[in-house]
Amino acid sequence: MSKSENIPVPAVRRLSLYLRQLETFLANDRLTVSSKQLGQALCLSDAQVRKDLAYFGQFGHAGIGYRVGELIPRVRRILGTDKPAHVLLVGVGNLGRALISYRGFSKQGFEVVAAFDKDPAKIGRELHGSTALRIESLGAMSAAVRKHSIRLGILAVPSSAAQGVADEMVTAGIRGILNFAPVTLQVNPSVAVSSVDLAVHLEQLSFQLTGSPS
Amino acid sequence: MSKSENIPVPAVRRLSLYLRQLETFLANDRLTVSSKQLGQALCLSDAQVRKDLAYFGQFGHAGIGYRVGELIPRVRRILGTDKPAHVLLVGVGNLGRALISYRGFSKQGFEVVAAFDKDPAKIGRELHGSTALRIESLGAMSAAVRKHSIRLGILAVPSSAAQGVADEMVTAGIRGILNFAPVTLQVNPSVAVSSVDLAVHLEQLSFQLTGSPS
Repeated sequence: MSKSENIPVPAVRRLSLYLRQLETFLANDRLTVSSKQLGQALCLSDAQVRKDLAYFGQFGHAGIGYRVGELIPRVRRILGTDKPAHVLLVGVGNLGRALISYRGFSKQGFEVVAAFDKDPAKIGRELHGSTALRIESLGAMSAAVRKHSIRLGILAVPSSAAQGVADEMVTAGIRGILNFAPVTLQVNPSVAVSSVDLAVHLEQLSFQLTGSPS
Repeated sequence: MSKSENIPVPAVRRLSLYLRQLETFLANDRLTVSSKQLGQALCLSDAQVRKDLAYFGQFGHAGIGYRVGELIPRVRRILGTDKPAHVLLVGVGNLGRALISYRGFSKQGFEVVAAFDKDPAKIGRELHGSTALRIESLGAMSAAVRKHSIRLGILAVPSSAAQGVADEMVTAGIRGILNFAPVTLQVNPSVAVSSVDLAVHLEQLSFQLTGSPS
């Protein structure tokens, strides 16, 4: 597998936050930034920022800090998003359709190039996301994975079907699954799984409305 | 407004992570946990955990650490999720329908009790989420906000309509908006906005597949 095994997951998660913040700095014509300034923008200590980034390489310049225009492509390369990545999706229900046309994915370099569903009534229908695609049967997944060099898959099926479909995705060659079903998937440890918890966002808003020290 | 204004946003975000981790500890029959153990599970220093929690109150017991069964309800109370919260949703397209039936919301105490759309063809139709509800026109929002004591709203309309609808939500009395449109909303600073960036999850998976120090 990759060399990433010894890097803590939260440090990788913060790398995405650093990238978004650096993109904001760039949009504001900021050329350099110190670990302290980057940390302040995200309410992390400068020591935490330096420690996190040190997992991935040497990025700072003495007396300058980080060069924004240099750090962004390096972070993207580390995240593997410096080139467009092909993604497949299984489960073309309401959520699946919404995700296929979600612009936030293509903005960060992810393109849904194949979609699959179990329902014979849906197979063969055309969808229009960032590219036009035709819904295929799950049996066609392996061929699509090879044809489009797909490694990432979005799982948008009902909870009851999630584990079985995840198994089929892994068999077809998918190495990373973005899971929207509120169940814990059991997969081979070599397969990466990320489960989306949308309730966290509502919790954060809830706090801002009601939060006070107890 | 609330007393939360001086607490850094990332500390509040980590409070949700602490809550999920504490719920996992509880599910594993863990009765007490130290700041070091809580930090280790999330790859944060014990100092960071203590500093974050100190914003919200005094929770530790000398020689014991945190009592899991005591800390969970206190964190929920701080987040304002100790009681079920009513939520409305605007934009009953594919994403809106998916969110109405998303079980992760009700699991954490959020219930979508009203749904609105501009499309006359949709108004009056019934939907079945955690409760049955009927799609209403945007003009009916104020009345629903008062009737159901709603303060949180989910915005699931196309980008082009997002700002206008956000304004209508605020006028109707909504104080926190969960925004799924990939645009930056301009609202009164007294209104909380959280924008969902689903691409972060794909980035994390991408890293796990390709990541290596550069």
